[in-house]
Order: sequence, then structure tokens, then C-alpha cells
Amino acid sequence: LESYEAAQGWIVVTIIGAAIGLNAAFLNIITEWLADIKMGHCKTAFYLNENFCCWGEDNGCADWERWTGLEPINYFLYIMFAILFSFTSATLVKSYAPYAAGSGISEIKCIIAGFIMKGFLGFRTLAIKSIALPLAIGSGLSVGKEGPSVHYAVCTGNVISKLFNKYRQNASKTREILSACAAAGVAVAFGSPIGGVLFSLEEMSSYFPLKTMWRSYFCALVATAVLAAMNPFRTGQLVMFQVHYDRTWHFFEFLFYIIIGVFGGLYGAFVIKWNLRVQAFRKKYLANYAILEAVLLAAATAIVCYPNAFLRIDMTESMEILFLECEGAEDYHGLCESKHRLRNVISLVIATVVRVFFVIISYGCKVPAGIFVPSMAIGALFGRTLGIIVQALYDANPQSLFFSSCQPDVPCITPGTYAFLGAASALSGIMHIYVSVVVIMFELTGALTYILPTMIVVGVTKAVSELFGSGGIADRMIWFSGFPYLDNKEEHNFGVPVSHAMITDVVSIPSTGLTLKTVERLLAKDNYQGFPIVDHENSKILIGYIGRTELCYAVERAKRERTLSPLAKCTFASSTTNSSSAMDPTATTPIVLTTSASLPSEPLDYASSSSTTIDFTRYVDATPVTVHPRLPLETVLELFRKIGPRVILIEYHGKLMGLVTVKDCLKYQFKAEAAEHGDRDREVLG
Amino acid sequence: LESYEAAQGWIVVTIIGAAIGLNAAFLNIITEWLADIKMGHCKTAFYLNENFCCWGEDNGCADWERWTGLEPINYFLYIMFAILFSFTSATLVKSYAPYAAGSGISEIKCIIAGFIMKGFLGFRTLAIKSIALPLAIGSGLSVGKEGPSVHYAVCTGNVISKLFNKYRQNASKTREILSACAAAGVAVAFGSPIGGVLFSLEEMSSYFPLKTMWRSYFCALVATAVLAAMNPFRTGQLVMFQVHYDRTWHFFEFLFYIIIGVFGGLYGAFVIKWNLRVQAFRKKYLANYAILEAVLLAAATAIVCYPNAFLRIDMTESMEILFLECEGAEDYHGLCESKHRLRNVISLVIATVVRVFFVIISYGCKVPAGIFVPSMAIGALFGRTLGIIVQALYDANPQSLFFSSCQPDVPCITPGTYAFLGAASALSGIMHIYVSVVVIMFELTGALTYILPTMIVVGVTKAVSELFGSGGIADRMIWFSGFPYLDNKEEHNFGVPVSHAMITDVVSIPSTGLTLKTVERLLAKDNYQGFPIVDHENSKILIGYIGRTELCYAVERAKRERTLSPLAKCTFASSTTNSSSAMDPTATTPIVLTTSASLPSEPLDYASSSSTTIDFTRYVDATPVTVHPRLPLETVLELFRKIGPRVILIEYHGKLMGLVTVKDCLKYQFKAEAAEHGDRDREVLG
Repeated sequence: LESYEAAQGWIVVTIIGAAIGLNAAFLNIITEWLADIKMGHCKTAFYLNENFCCWGEDNGCADWERWTGLEPINYFLYIMFAILFSFTSATLVKSYAPYAAGSGISEIKCIIAGFIMKGFLGFRTLAIKSIALPLAIGSGLSVGKEGPSVHYAVCTGNVISKLFNKYRQNASKTREILSACAAAGVAVAFGSPIGGVLFSLEEMSSYFPLKTMWRSYFCALVATAVLAAMNPFRTGQLVMFQVHYDRTWHFFEFLFYIIIGVFGGLYGAFVIKWNLRVQAFRKKYLANYAILEAVLLAAATAIVCYPNAFLRIDMTESMEILFLECEGAEDYHGLCESKHRLRNVISLVIATVVRVFFVIISYGCKVPAGIFVPSMAIGALFGRTLGIIVQALYDANPQSLFFSSCQPDVPCITPGTYAFLGAASALSGIMHIYVSVVVIMFELTGALTYILPTMIVVGVTKAVSELFGSGGIADRMIWFSGFPYLDNKEEHNFGVPVSHAMITDVVSIPSTGLTLKTVERLLAKDNYQGFPIVDHENSKILIGYIGRTELCYAVERAKRERTLSPLAKCTFASSTTNSSSAMDPTATTPIVLTTSASLPSEPLDYASSSSTTIDFTRYVDATPVTVHPRLPLETVLELFRKIGPRVILIEYHGKLMGLVTVKDCLKYQFKAEAAEHGDRDREVLG
Repeated sequence: LESYEAAQGWIVVTIIGAAIGLNAAFLNIITEWLADIKMGHCKTAFYLNENFCCWGEDNGCADWERWTGLEPINYFLYIMFAILFSFTSATLVKSYAPYAAGSGISEIKCIIAGFIMKGFLGFRTLAIKSIALPLAIGSGLSVGKEGPSVHYAVCTGNVISKLFNKYRQNASKTREILSACAAAGVAVAFGSPIGGVLFSLEEMSSYFPLKTMWRSYFCALVATAVLAAMNPFRTGQLVMFQVHYDRTWHFFEFLFYIIIGVFGGLYGAFVIKWNLRVQAFRKKYLANYAILEAVLLAAATAIVCYPNAFLRIDMTESMEILFLECEGAEDYHGLCESKHRLRNVISLVIATVVRVFFVIISYGCKVPAGIFVPSMAIGALFGRTLGIIVQALYDANPQSLFFSSCQPDVPCITPGTYAFLGAASALSGIMHIYVSVVVIMFELTGALTYILPTMIVVGVTKAVSELFGSGGIADRMIWFSGFPYLDNKEEHNFGVPVSHAMITDVVSIPSTGLTLKTVERLLAKDNYQGFPIVDHENSKILIGYIGRTELCYAVERAKRERTLSPLAKCTFASSTTNSSSAMDPTATTPIVLTTSASLPSEPLDYASSSSTTIDFTRYVDATPVTVHPRLPLETVLELFRKIGPRVILIEYHGKLMGLVTVKDCLKYQFKAEAAEHGDRDREVLG
């Protein structure tokens, strides 16, 4: 039985991983089919997408047919499908599971940090998210499925782990599982198990011990293996595309890599800023028109994007095309041909601008929607543009000193690698994740030779992003929504002791003497998370701490077990805990012994003799986290982050001086920041 | 100036990274030359190794000549060179820098955790390690250069950072730099920057915030870029070899992957156990014969290894050969030919056993020596053996159900991939690192398709390793050497409060009343790291804590500034700190005012009026980390690990009850473990 206990964690993680992998395979297949059905259908079997319909053939086939032969009607049908899909998706979300909207990453970050959000990870959210996500992607909105896949993975983990006793009762163990699920979510979305683990470490988890890392590793492994076994793309690959760059880079290209890195940083800052404004607008004016908004967005996206070759297709597909090395016969709409260079550049620039605009207005609308792949697609568009320009420069001056390290016979500049680096840069610019981006790009494409360029680009993006400060889009959304979350990336420097932020008018409970009535009134009236236990109301010598939930439970239980007079005395400290109360002459521990007046069948133990003295000692935490009032506030925040208590008590020479919670610290921080910057930041959201 | 302060960290890391990269390039070139010179020499230029001598040609050339035409004489010269190199290496280490011996990873772990080891990271160690390492590798001993590369990288970081004020004064900032250097060390050793970062996270650092992660990322990036720019292998690659597997794996192969994983776990447990016994023997009997030992080992290795085709060559080279996919013309001594299968298997099994034996007796001898690559080489030997056997099985029964997923026309089993997985497994088995191994293997070879198999193999290795418990070879060496180190991989479950482990007879200093003479006697006599300050010796109300170093410094400084009577009174708490001393009626704060009897030129400030009252208040930490005596010992260990104080005071209702240091906790742990297991473990080392 004991070894079952120990193994239970791994069993649960295996089941969860398998479920996530299955779900991901299912979603991949549906998403592809929905994306293709907008264009045409398979004559032999309607349920096949273009790829499977034309299995083994390269550029379409006779079995796959456009809806009609007339291009304007195809255009119209494309728009109609987009509207239908987005309408269905938004209606499902609105009617059944409002929490299924968006990417969910911000909320999950808070939940993993200890915040409670009922229903956010429930079964209904999981089901609706799994159905509405392919529809949202299929509708052609500029949103991705990678962010939401973290949400459905974490939902899966939450739903399944709740079936096991161990996790139903232990919130901190559940959070460990949720961290692992976040890793598996990214792992299946990108086919990048190690990237998933690092994503969970870098972005999702405020506390990530090695044990959680191994859980995440294992969960991501199982999920990816199941996905590989399902083989949804029938290519034997985990990802939709894989590139092999045979050509290597040159040191002079570092200059352009820096440009790409700067673009990523600027892109992130720009999109975050404007997206937050759109969010504020949406919150204020569009709250009741969620479905209409989604439909209009989808229609507008379809109308605008259809004419552009790079916008019409799925974003993942467009990335695959943009990453092409242009070796051999591979080509798409003349992208590889140097004679179409100008046309391509114009088309790419238009596509970049349009895509950025749609990402800003689409991310946050009320369908399941992520921002990973849209950002990567934008980065790839920009990168390819730059790559083609550099190639043109080289072709114009092949003999110049700058290009001297190029070998004469082989192509020197590979625009596909610029697209690849652009994707990495934009992703890290928007999410403010770095190491995981390098690993994800790496696992996504297998471009081993390009690890140094990727690291440089991402490093530059990080430096630029930091000039604009204040975290990635997930952190900004947390801030925008006002969730209590301690960002462990930022370093706060308050320069004040904790006593400046603490609450001093604390309702504390004396260890003895309080009647049950008073305790119940305390529980009914006050909205505190818990109560410090003190020796005596005047001396305030700290004895312990009792959480509100524990106290409620204890009172309920005591009342259920026997009939209690409302005047029964409550004690919160046994005599052993009180041993040194001799120091304080005012503290006395009166022990009232009365015979039990209630149940005759009750055994004659300690409990039976105390129907008018209720002992709550075992619910009291005798060793709460306490600090000195002069301890710097930074250190207190560190304690919250690393040790993770709900509340920290301030004790001075044994006396309770006050308490702080994370919220109090954040309140103080907001006040301090407001005093410093004025209302500059808030105003942005006006 | 302020922005210089902020940028200083990055500047320092850049310089350090560049230095590490340069050093690595230099070492790579020297090592290759030394390895080749044992066999022969370049006729055109003696300083070229075989590769450069025969640039552009595949299998040797006429310019590269064996020393003689007679094989026995070549054999003899091979042995002589091995002896010469090992003698030089061991002599250098013994005479100039004993700390340069071994891999240094265990010690660096302790140093990063806060342990102080004077000279271990000094310039002399760096210089000797950089010279003696290529000699040790060149001598053919079964040791690797990857572990020591962490040591020389960290030395470089320490030496360079000490040139900057910011780091000379701040030990914790320096430790951050050292973590980054460890990452760079692995990065240049394997050409694996991200693997280096993860290695530093997983193995080296007890505390690894995101900021350190980015420092490590940047340092590894710079080091790798410099190494790439130096291009020591003239292949444009970061690593000595890169494999491309065109064939993919099959699900039935998972069975064999599990066997490989089990091998890795068993290998690790076996080598760790026996190597520790050898270490104990070495410590006891061979301490004075370090040079002789190294020479004999090198001679024995050379004599035994020369006749075997897989043992004669450099271990890195042998891995490259074993990883071969056997596609096209590539071959080595008939390894790819099925007709030589039996001969190959026998040769490989012999090589595996011999290599394991030599690793056990060589690792720890007094030359710079790592265990990464030897372990990988052993894993690769075993993996290739298994791969050839599986291939033979398939060739015997190509139609069996088990192999049904093999396609008929293409080779189904690729023994090279088994070698690859074997290397990963053995590395993680010996070091007990997992995620970093996956990434390192991945960056080393670019075998993207094999990420799932690698993860499975490493996962199995982890499970098997955990059956044997007690950490990787670095952790066992720490334990063997008795360094004070809190392993954050292990979870301790003592089930006792901290009061069981605390020291109760603490020498504390009353806040007032002590004479200078007494303080000096305390400093002279006692060997404590510091002293708690209490209100009064009887009441023991805790006021603060003063470190021994701070107190020494304060006393020296006070004496330097003015002439002091030995009877001068020392105060350790200003009246504000004492404000609540009213609570304790016994505490008084007598302020003795006397006119200064010494320097007439002294300005008439507070200091001048207190030549008989010395105020040490500003050296006192008024908010030391304090805990309740009933706090579980596990939580206290967590505090040590995560907050990192030198000492934790135990306070009960304001009174000082005792204190604990990391050492006290470890002592308690050893005692508890000894009581549990008997002396089983220690005895192993007899």
C-alpha cells in the first residue's frame, strides 16, 4: 500500500499525459480538416482533409476539389465558413463555459501560484475549450492553438487528479501536477517536450523544484509519446513541419540577426501596449456583444486576408513555407525565385502589417485564442522580408568586403533562416520567455546549426524588451485584470521595513476565554483569512495562527459531535504550548471540567469531559511564519515567493505587532509605484 | 555612472565568457595534437595534428607518418608518450596546484552553495589546470576533459570577477557569476550552450533564480560564440562530431531502449560504489605516491588499450565512430559490415569491461580528470553491442511479428542510434542529471528525431538510479569528503522540530555592559561564526546578531581610531532598538559620558564623547532569521536552502533558545541516518 502511495503520483501523471496526448491528436486532426474545408472538399470521403485526400501526392490532386470553379464564389464561401465557425465557437463559449475564452495562461499562472478561481479548470471548461478551439482556429481568426493547449492540458490534469484522494485534499500537490500539465500542453502543441518543461519553469511556475521538473519531464514525455503514436499528421513527425538547413551562417550576418532581435522586442512592446488598450475598450463597450464581435472579426479577417497568398493559408502552414531553404524543387507562389523579389517583398510587408493589426484586435476576443503562433508567423514574415532584402544586397554586390566570407559557388544568404529567427524573436518578444523559445525553435525545426544565431536573436530581443519593462503579455494581463500575483521576474526595491506595509489592527484570538458565540460572530462578521492566536488580548504574546477554513471546519465539527452551549469556552493552546506563559503573569489557563451533558454513548475520554470547553489546539498552527517588524519588505516578498505562506505575522520580542498577506504587499507596491510614476501607466488603458 | 553599475554585470560576464571560449579553443587544439603525437607526426610541420596535416583527405595521408614502420616499436613509443604526459601532468599538479586534480565539480557545488575553500578557484589553479588537462587527456588515461572544463571556467570567472569592485565585496553576486561560468564550462566542453545552462540549473546550483539563468545563458552564448569564431576543429562545428540519423525509430524498439536505460542506471550505481572504495584506498595508502600512481595508471591503460581498436583511440573519436549510421561509405575497422558481427561484438564487450575497470580506478587520481566522456564512451560501447545484437536478431527473423513494423527495403535497426542512447544513459546514470543530458545529447548530435527515445532512456535510467539512491557521483564525493552541503534533490523527512538539532549553549552578547576586554577574549577564544545579541544575559530577549568577521572588523577599527581602555563598555543596541525594553524591568541602558582623553583635534561629535562607550550598533543585524523551536527541521533546511542565511536563531516568545547552522543540521542528519541504517554505508568505504 505504501509503495502504491509513492507510485500514485507517477500513475496519475501517466494517465494525465496520455489524456493530453490523445486530446492533442484529436484537436490536430479536427483543426486541419476545418482549415481545409473552407477551401474545398474531398470527393472520395468528405471527412478527409486535403493532405489525406491526396495522400502521397505533392501539390494537390483531382480528388480534392475547390467548392466551385468560380473564384468569387469560393471567396464568398470562405467568408461564410469563417463566420459559421466563429459564431459556433463564440456561442459555445458564451453559453456553456465563459472561462474557455482566451488563452488562459495568465489565469493559470495565478492558479499555480496559489490563487483560487472556481471552475476555471473544471470539466466543462475542458470540454468546451476542446470543441471551440478547432472552430476558432478554423475560422481563420489571427489566433493560435498553442496557448489554449496549455489551458486544456491543465484542465485535463485538474479533472483527472481530482479523481484521486491524494490530490483532492492537497492543493500544493495538485499545483505541482498543474505545472507538469502546463509543460505537457506546450510539449504537444509544438512537439517539443523539453521546450515544454522549460516553458513551465520559465513562465508558468513561481516555484519550480527539481521534483516538479521531473514530473513535468515525465508528463511531457508521455503526452508526446502518445501523440507520436497517434501520428496525427501521418508523417511520423511530431510537428507539422521540420526544416533542415544544410547551409550554415556567416559571422557578418550577426548584424542582421541583431535587427531581427530588435524587431522582436519592438513588436512585443507595441502589441502588448495596443492589445491592452483594445482589451480595455472591449471590457467597457463590447462585454455584451461577444458573439457579434467574434463573427465580425472573423468576417473581416477572411475578407482582408484571402487575397494575400501568405495570409490566406493557416499560420502554421505559412511558417512552414517561409522557413523554406529553397533548395531543390521546393517553392510556393514563386517565393524562392529571385525575379519575383520585389513582388514578394511587397506582399510580405503587407502581410506583416495586416497580421499585426489583426493580432492586436483579435487576441482577447471571447473564443479560445492564443498568441504564440500568430506572433511567430509575424516574425517569420518580417524575417523573410529582411532575408530577401539581404539576398538582393548580396546579389548586387557579391564582391564587396562585407560579403567576403561568402563562398562563390553556393548560395550565401538563406532567407528561410531569417524567417526562422524572426519567428523566435517575435515569440520571445511577446511572451518574454527566452531559454524556452530557443529550445522550442530547436525542437520544432531541428535547426541545430542555428542555435547560436537563435540565442543571439533572443538575447537581443530580451535586452530590447527590458527597456520597455513590465513583463510579457501574460504578466500584463494579470496586472490588467488585477489578480494578486507576485512576479518573481521583477526585483522590487522598496527600501522600507515590512512594518510600513503591515496591517496593525489585527483581529486576534486569545488562547483561552473566548466563548463559542464570539468565535462564531468573528467567523460570520469578518472577512479575514485567519486569526493569530495570542496569549492574552493585552499582552499579545503570539502563540500561533488558525486559518479561517480550519476554524470553520473545527466549529462545525464540534457542533456536529455534541450539543454545545453558545457560552462554551474555546481554548486554542494546550498547556504544553503555554509552558512559558509563566513569564507573563497576566496569562492564566483556567481548565473547566464539567461532565458531558449530551451523548451517553460517548466514550469517557478527554473530549467527553469538555462539552463546555472546546479544544481547538490541534487546528492551530503553532509555528506560523513570523518576522521582525524591521525586516526589509523585499525579504518578506522573497519569503512569500519561496516559502509560500498565506500570511506572515510580524512579531517583536514575542509580541504580535501585525500581519501581512501578499495582497497587502501588492497594495503597498501599487501605492509606491503610483506615487512614483503618477498615473502614467493606468492612463494608458483609458 | 549608475547605468555603468547596472551594465557592469553584463560586461563582466562578456569578458569571462570570451576568456572561457578562448581557453576552450586553446585546450581543444592542444589536446588533439597531444592525442595524435602518440601515434605519429606530421612531416610538413610537427605542430599539426593528423587532421590538419591531412587537410581535406579522408583516411590519413602520406604527410602524416607513424613514428616507425615497426608495430612493436610504435606500441612502445605509445606507452612512453603516455608515461611522459601523465608524469608531467601529475608533477605540475602536485608541485603547483593540488586543487587542480580531479574534476572539481563536487567542490564547486559546495562553493556555489556558500562554502569557502581558499585558493580552489585561484589563478594558479586555473593556469595549472589549463596546462595539465591536455596532458592528462593526451596520456590516454580513462578520464575526460568535460568535468574539468567546468572547473577552469569557474576559475576564470572567479579570477576575472575579482578585478571588479562589485564582486570583490559581494560573495552572493560572485556566486551568481560562478553559476553562469559553470554553464559556460559545459557549453564549451560539449558545444551545447542550452545544455550548459540546464546543467548549471540541475546539478551545480542550489538556488537558481531566473536572473541567474539569463546570466548563464548569456555567458554560455558568448563563450560558445567565441569558440565558434576560433573554430578549433576547422569544421565550422562546435563539436567534434555531429551525426545525422535519416532513419527513424520504431515503437518495438522501446523494449531495447528500456534495456539501455537499465544499463545506465546499473552502470552508475556500480561505478559510484567501486570508485568510492578506490578513493578510500587511495586516500589511505596512495596519498604520497600521487605521481607514481598516475604514471602507472597511464602505462597500464596504454598497454591494455592499444591492442583494442575501440580503446586505442581518443574516447571522443570512439564515440563518433560508434554513433555512425553506416549509411554510404562510412566505416571503421569493419564496424558496419554484418560479416564481422561476431568479431565486433566480442571486441566491443571487451572494450566495455576494460573501460569500466579503468574508469573506476582512474577517476580521482591526481591529475585533472572528468568522468563525463568516459561514461558516455562506455555507454556507447554497450549500446552499439546491443544494437548489433538486435540487428542480428532482425536479420535472422525479418518476417517475425515483433519486427512487423519494419519496412522491407530499408535497414530497420540502426546500431548507431543504440550507441547514441547508451551514451546518454550512462552519462545520466553516473551524474544523476536528466533534463540536461537530453539537451546535451541533442545539441551534441542534432538527432532531433531521437528526442523521444532519449527521454525514455534517460527516464528509465533515473528510475533505476533512484533505487540505489543517494545521488550522483558528485554528491557522493561531497558526502565522502564531508563537505557541508545541503542536497536539494533529496527530501529529508526527519519528523522532528528544529529544537532537536539546535545548539543550546550559545555564547550570546548582552546589548550593554560588556567590556572591550571581554569582547576581545570572546573573539580570541571561541570559534563561533557569530554571536546573538540579547537584551540581558538572564532574560535573553533577542535583539540581533553580529557576525564574527563584522565584530572583529569593528573592534579593530574602533581601536585604530582612538585609544581605548580595555575596560571601555561595548553597546550593541541603540536606544531605539531597545524601545520596548521597558517590558523587561531588568534591562537598563546606562549611558556613561566621559570626555575624550586622547586626541585633541577630534571634532566634538558623538564619537568623541564615547571613548569609554563603544557603539557597535551599526554592525549588528537587527533582523536575523529567527524561527520557533517547534518548527519542523525540514522547514528549517528549506529556509537555509532558499533564503540562505549562515545561521538561524531559535526564538521563543522573544527569548533566544538556541541556534542552528547548516553544519548542525547535517550533523543531526548523519546521526539520524546512522541510527537508521547502522554503519552500512560508511563500511562500504572501508
